[in-house]
Amino acid sequence: MTIGNAMIDLEVKLGIGELYAAYADCIDDDRLEEWPDFFVDDCRYLITDRQSHEAGYKHGVIYCASKGMLIDRVTSMRRVLMFEAHRYRHLVGPPRILRAEGGIAETNANFFVARIMHSGETTLFATGRYLDRIAIGAEPYRFIERLVVLDSPKIDTLIAIPL
Amino acid sequence: MTIGNAMIDLEVKLGIGELYAAYADCIDDDRLEEWPDFFVDDCRYLITDRQSHEAGYKHGVIYCASKGMLIDRVTSMRRVLMFEAHRYRHLVGPPRILRAEGGIAETNANFFVARIMHSGETTLFATGRYLDRIAIGAEPYRFIERLVVLDSPKIDTLIAIPL
Amino acid sequence: MTIGNAMIDLEVKLGIGELYAAYADCIDDDRLEEWPDFFVDDCRYLITDRQSHEAGYKHGVIYCASKGMLIDRVTSMRRVLMFEAHRYRHLVGPPRILRAEGGIAETNANFFVARIMHSGETTLFATGRYLDRIAIGAEPYRFIERLVVLDSPKIDTLIAIPL
Repeated sequence: MTIGNAMIDLEVKLGIGELYAAYADCIDDDRLEEWPDFFVDDCRYLITDRQSHEAGYKHGVIYCASKGMLIDRVTSMRRVLMFEAHRYRHLVGPPRILRAEGGIAETNANFFVARIMHSGETTLFATGRYLDRIAIGAEPYRFIERLVVLDSPKIDTLIAIPL
Repeated sequence: MTIGNAMIDLEVKLGIGELYAAYADCIDDDRLEEWPDFFVDDCRYLITDRQSHEAGYKHGVIYCASKGMLIDRVTSMRRVLMFEAHRYRHLVGPPRILRAEGGIAETNANFFVARIMHSGETTLFATGRYLDRIAIGAEPYRFIERLVVLDSPKIDTLIAIPL
Repeated sequence: MTIGNAMIDLEVKLGIGELYAAYADCIDDDRLEEWPDFFVDDCRYLITDRQSHEAGYKHGVIYCASKGMLIDRVTSMRRVLMFEAHRYRHLVGPPRILRAEGGIAETNANFFVARIMHSGETTLFATGRYLDRIAIGAEPYRFIERLVVLDSPKIDTLIAIPL
């Protein structure tokens, strides 16, 4: 690694770190209406589990194939969830940049998500890994694809808030 | 973001990262006597919960309005806790720098804290967010204000060790 | 901290961050055969608990004094574990570099490890701290010594997968 490359990597690395952190804050702050803005128009968002992912299945608990579908998802979510049932708290490990060329970065990061019920009860709700493709040609960086690969196949079927 | 700005941000970013990590290690290592030194003299330290914070309440489970109060807190804590009841382990996400000007940085970061009882039993004790104002005009960086906003209102009333 | 030093530190910091992340991914992906390659030949790997470590004991739940012993460990592990009993998910905090000179860095980092059983049940399995000595004279960086200091003395005696 040369200093020159380190500098270029660094700018990308800081930008990706900021994207990851802003994304988690958006969800944890329950500002779900802003969530679709973290994606490009022609995006893909999928929540699946490790075994399904390794088996090559392309479907999952939540599947959205465009930013429009993300917006619809939030709208219907707000209609169904009349009151705030729970909150999440994300803790996301440092992102690894596997590739960054042609304006696209491939990255991943581990995450833990705690769920805090209205009663205050807190549990380790989900663990897993983000597998991402990110548009880094212009700022702000946006997700082209975000695969949320949960470690456990036992996914709460009432899952409604994005991860 | 220009390379030049990235460099300045970087130095601040590394310094803030080090402050956050050193703070967590100090508590996790039970070196509580050193804890007040992470703050400026005229500081504010508050542990509260999300709902109280959003409602604008300025009080909390622990409230200290000066470094002297932090020192008093540690002294009384050591008197009450005759033996080591438990330990904490902090895991703090990457800090976000929201603003850095005039020698003061506004930052925040998510955290998970595990509590390890003397028996060895380990639980996810608390999750939440640090909301900080940091003096970055000189090294070492010090907290002007640290708000510890817990996600859950169900705070263990025996909470004694700072977070 | 001067800009010049920050740059040198930065390259080392990024390299160490990458080593930590690649190490965790290797275990979480169950690519255990690659695990010994994260160490130099003449290495030391120890899983112990905080109280034993503070008492100065040099033994632990797992102790390996060379890369060959790490390889043996994986071989016997694969023989014993006929099927995949469980997976881990590491979340590792930002590494702190305590010293970096003469081609060796001393670093540490906090970690949480979740264990995901075949049934999907997920628990906070272990928390603790990595205490490391890393060869940074050449790339890729490799561990000279990795001490895994668990917070809890109640270690699952069936522990088999490295941490």
